[in-house]
Amino acid sequence: MPPSNAKARLIETMRALLRRKGYHGTGLKQVLQESGSPRGSLYFHFPGGKEELAAEAIHSGCSAIAARFAGLDLQRGPGEVLEQVAAIMAAELEGSGYEHGCPAATVALEEAPFSDRLQEACLTNYQTYIDLLCRLFEPHVDDAEAAREWAFLVLATLEGAQLLAKTWRSPEPLQIAGRRLRTMFEARQGGDRVSKGDS
Amino acid sequence: MPPSNAKARLIETMRALLRRKGYHGTGLKQVLQESGSPRGSLYFHFPGGKEELAAEAIHSGCSAIAARFAGLDLQRGPGEVLEQVAAIMAAELEGSGYEHGCPAATVALEEAPFSDRLQEACLTNYQTYIDLLCRLFEPHVDDAEAAREWAFLVLATLEGAQLLAKTWRSPEPLQIAGRRLRTMFEARQGGDRVSKGDS
Repeated sequence: MPPSNAKARLIETMRALLRRKGYHGTGLKQVLQESGSPRGSLYFHFPGGKEELAAEAIHSGCSAIAARFAGLDLQRGPGEVLEQVAAIMAAELEGSGYEHGCPAATVALEEAPFSDRLQEACLTNYQTYIDLLCRLFEPHVDDAEAAREWAFLVLATLEGAQLLAKTWRSPEPLQIAGRRLRTMFEARQGGDRVSKGDS
Repeated sequence: MPPSNAKARLIETMRALLRRKGYHGTGLKQVLQESGSPRGSLYFHFPGGKEELAAEAIHSGCSAIAARFAGLDLQRGPGEVLEQVAAIMAAELEGSGYEHGCPAATVALEEAPFSDRLQEACLTNYQTYIDLLCRLFEPHVDDAEAAREWAFLVLATLEGAQLLAKTWRSPEPLQIAGRRLRTMFEARQGGDRVSKGDS
């Protein structure tokens, strides 16, 4: 098997394990076993070991999701797109027996504050989603700041709904999130200019 | 030191470690060290070991948050209360140097699907918050189902915003979530009756 395949297999295995068990719960032994890779191959491709492999796995997961997002028909407007994204997330989670979540979420929660490389990987991952969502919202709201606020709100809601769907082992939290986000976006009336000085 | 204090200290230490490092990242050795407890004390109070202690830590965190929620002035209406809750979460996270998150979130994401006891603890934890939020919304929306949908939406958004605030090391995602949830709740117009058959 050529090295490039071995590398891809290591990344894919790590990504699946991060989604299921998080960073600390994933041992390199298991990664090697499940990917069928010899130890030497791991350190050849990832001299930084587990941390470097995990960062790569997060980047790869992010690229896969960004590609899927780009394949959606964004012309249908943010409300419908959001409901569709939530439905896709619900179907994936259900299809995996509620094992597969966001590979970055567990790492971001676990890795308080001790690894700059993993922190950076999580931040890049979520910043990519924020940028995608900003582009989705910008043509439909007052200004770039409103688009950014919607992007943060939506990403937070979907990530949190995925956590709750995993906990309940039910697609319902994601279905509610998709439906409510759509309703709220479509029903907003001049609500994009939020006063920040009223608290 | 009487056993009850030793038990409380173990729970408190475990809770702090879950918030920072998650379940797999927390070793019993570290729990014993940081709580200043002998190993015998741990198995005396928690015959089920780490898993039982973690479940107790999640329950204890949940009770603490429920008590704080009960102390808020709920008469001011859901919008203002939500913004205040988000502000409290942001201040706590900032005050801990972005280390302290939700003790249940990391466990819920990590523990796919292998521990019934931890799954149960996470579910009870989030169900408690859903119940509290339902009581907050019920007097202000159309019916119990609308209150439940708001409760899931709000819990998802706040949990997700906490994850993003941790990743960005900034209170902003929680501030945006609080502000937007408030605006959207206060601006809703007959939006509580969401059609579920239109997708």
